[in-house]
Amino acid sequence: MKRSFRNLEGSIVAPLGFTTAGVFCDIKRLGTGKGSDKGQKRDLTLIVSEAPCTVAGLFTTNQVCAAPVKVCVERVRQGTAQAIVVNSGNANACTGRPGLRDARNMTAVAAKILGLQPEHVLVGSTGRIGVAMPMDNVRAGIAKVAPLLGRTPEHAAHAAEAIMTSDTQPKQVAIEFKLDGRTVRLGGICKGAGMIQPGMSATGARPAAVPQGLHATMLAFLTTDANIDARILQPMLEEAVALSFNRITVDGDMSTNDTVLLLANGLAGNSRAAVRKPTAAARRTFQAALNHVCLQLAYKIVRDGEGVHRVVTLRVQGARSNADADAAARSVGNSPLVKTSWHGGDPNWGRIIDALGYSPATIVEDKVDIGYSATGSKKVLWSLRRGQPTQATFQELCKAVAPTEFDLHIRLNLGKGNAILYAADLTEEYVDFNKGNVADPTTLGG
Amino acid sequence: MKRSFRNLEGSIVAPLGFTTAGVFCDIKRLGTGKGSDKGQKRDLTLIVSEAPCTVAGLFTTNQVCAAPVKVCVERVRQGTAQAIVVNSGNANACTGRPGLRDARNMTAVAAKILGLQPEHVLVGSTGRIGVAMPMDNVRAGIAKVAPLLGRTPEHAAHAAEAIMTSDTQPKQVAIEFKLDGRTVRLGGICKGAGMIQPGMSATGARPAAVPQGLHATMLAFLTTDANIDARILQPMLEEAVALSFNRITVDGDMSTNDTVLLLANGLAGNSRAAVRKPTAAARRTFQAALNHVCLQLAYKIVRDGEGVHRVVTLRVQGARSNADADAAARSVGNSPLVKTSWHGGDPNWGRIIDALGYSPATIVEDKVDIGYSATGSKKVLWSLRRGQPTQATFQELCKAVAPTEFDLHIRLNLGKGNAILYAADLTEEYVDFNKGNVADPTTLGG
Repeated sequence: MKRSFRNLEGSIVAPLGFTTAGVFCDIKRLGTGKGSDKGQKRDLTLIVSEAPCTVAGLFTTNQVCAAPVKVCVERVRQGTAQAIVVNSGNANACTGRPGLRDARNMTAVAAKILGLQPEHVLVGSTGRIGVAMPMDNVRAGIAKVAPLLGRTPEHAAHAAEAIMTSDTQPKQVAIEFKLDGRTVRLGGICKGAGMIQPGMSATGARPAAVPQGLHATMLAFLTTDANIDARILQPMLEEAVALSFNRITVDGDMSTNDTVLLLANGLAGNSRAAVRKPTAAARRTFQAALNHVCLQLAYKIVRDGEGVHRVVTLRVQGARSNADADAAARSVGNSPLVKTSWHGGDPNWGRIIDALGYSPATIVEDKVDIGYSATGSKKVLWSLRRGQPTQATFQELCKAVAPTEFDLHIRLNLGKGNAILYAADLTEEYVDFNKGNVADPTTLGG
Repeated sequence: MKRSFRNLEGSIVAPLGFTTAGVFCDIKRLGTGKGSDKGQKRDLTLIVSEAPCTVAGLFTTNQVCAAPVKVCVERVRQGTAQAIVVNSGNANACTGRPGLRDARNMTAVAAKILGLQPEHVLVGSTGRIGVAMPMDNVRAGIAKVAPLLGRTPEHAAHAAEAIMTSDTQPKQVAIEFKLDGRTVRLGGICKGAGMIQPGMSATGARPAAVPQGLHATMLAFLTTDANIDARILQPMLEEAVALSFNRITVDGDMSTNDTVLLLANGLAGNSRAAVRKPTAAARRTFQAALNHVCLQLAYKIVRDGEGVHRVVTLRVQGARSNADADAAARSVGNSPLVKTSWHGGDPNWGRIIDALGYSPATIVEDKVDIGYSATGSKKVLWSLRRGQPTQATFQELCKAVAPTEFDLHIRLNLGKGNAILYAADLTEEYVDFNKGNVADPTTLGG
């Protein structure tokens, strides 16, 4: 069911009642400015609703999880929030009890300035692991950003910039649509770049199937003025994340900080009852909108992954189970040899079937089909049918894998399990960026 | 129990009764020579014993496995062999029934020239997947190589060269030691480079725990003049491979062709009975020798992996189980972010604990110790103790990870599970090599 939504400017402040701003407060302690925004990427933002919100969240399933994630897991469970404070430049991960105290203090400082209860403030962090949060800078930053809150597209752009680490561009989406006869808005910002293979759950607890492997962290913050009960907001966010952020991989590394938060303040004035006991149509509409926004944002993360040239949408069909299809897709999408062949524009089906063969999924060599299409197209050029090369020429196949985005179709022909994975190539730039330069520690990644 | 062995020249022909040779027969069909060895890397070898041998073998557990592997699995089970024919330049993988026929034909052609039964000839291949074996070239090559068989170190060097693909240098080891009062010899050659994370078993059937992920293929061929019954040779080879070839990773990709074969022709004259019902001492001695040779060869594969600058020996201790320790080690050793940090000389424990956290192994953040030592040294510089950074300075840690080889010590402090993994860094050269150049298909990897 394809739906079209009207796009809006202003991402997280497109919905009624939300304000934001972003400032530079030198959280990386580069020591290169006295809090001036000039020439420095912003590194702290507040996202604030004028009314209390229902809230939903999903968090990394990494067993090593950052202090802000621990704080959010507790607070999202309570179902109400009104603001989020987020920094880049420091992950506040592997920082022990002091780190947990710092994360809570960030919310307390923001709550005081905003006149909220600390428990109604959420927190997100991304950056280097294992470094104590520079709380003086954070306090100064919150004091600086709070008076700047506003709801123009420029404000939203500053927030989107403030959460970036190795991202080369801010990532924003907003749409509007009708719900219960009212116009409602849904917006979001996110960041990614490296350490990207999220596998998030509502509690941070590990699901039965742990993705094989995410690090710059992905963070996504979503806002809506729809009026929705937290008890249905959470499962809707889980579905949307399962189809988007949990379906991307840049490098197969799962971060300690991955976080998706959704705030719904109800100011659009749709009947809460109608959503609490939603008509099938209303729920479907909101779910479709949420899926759309999450997928747009997730795809932007892969597209802007560290050193990424090509993005490949893997479409695995006919696996024995959906879990098998997922495992097969991740094995291919995280294989260094497959990823370098994508970078080289080499339609190397040998590496693909090799990666299928060592995946945990059941594979039968002489049943495997492998082919390519333009993104979203059903016109597939098959390179392998039933384990045997087709008549497609090397030149034809090269042409199919030449675009910066294409679909890779894999049919295992063993059952009905399906999976999609949005994956990236592996380039010299990725390696160069992530090896950094120890002589200049500011170049070292998370 | 450390033992010292006397090193010999001549690798696979150091043991009595073995001959070899290597020739160029243009299996890659470069078409650049008329079978001349001049300027062309050799690509076909025969390894021949003058007496029938007991045989043991281990093979890739990839569900997509090459034709030569299928042929060897059958023949090793019978327990007797006398020759091996091996080519590089073509993997004979994903080549269907014609490929299986070609693999058998290779053994038949060799058997005829050598005056052996085809079932006593084994076969190995490595190179591009999915390309029909150029049987005219193979036949010509076998006819060319057979008259050249000899047992000088130069002959062995030609064989070691003939099995290379992206390897930059041939890999050879031979030792002698006393067994049952006799001097016996054990030698081997191998090749690797990329698609290297073997997980081999005796039948190619998958073990309960499948390593997460091998491709240039690793091939290893071992010869000994010890007199040993196949029934004890196989379990001894399994132990040796479990401690060596199955403990290496270059890129986490498991090949379709990984093969280790061991031929024992008994010409040293030790009493077979003594080994069939071996004294504990004799068995321990041969096992130690086999472990030593396999580990030397396996380490050479990592050291010469595609684009590899640094080799890191991961020593995981204190996991809940050995399986957990193995999973933790592979998660770290295959993490692109950890591997690029090794390349950069960055002692980034954040990426290491992140990779531990998303591994299938149980990890408790505040119990984890991470440290470094010189290769094989017990003097560890700890960067993390119980999840907290130590007083070690960034400069001290940088110095610890600066050598081209070092040990990484990880203690999970949860149990008694241990594992070692020999892993490689990830460099721009790896990416550049494996992306190839589609305009020149001869540059494209397996």
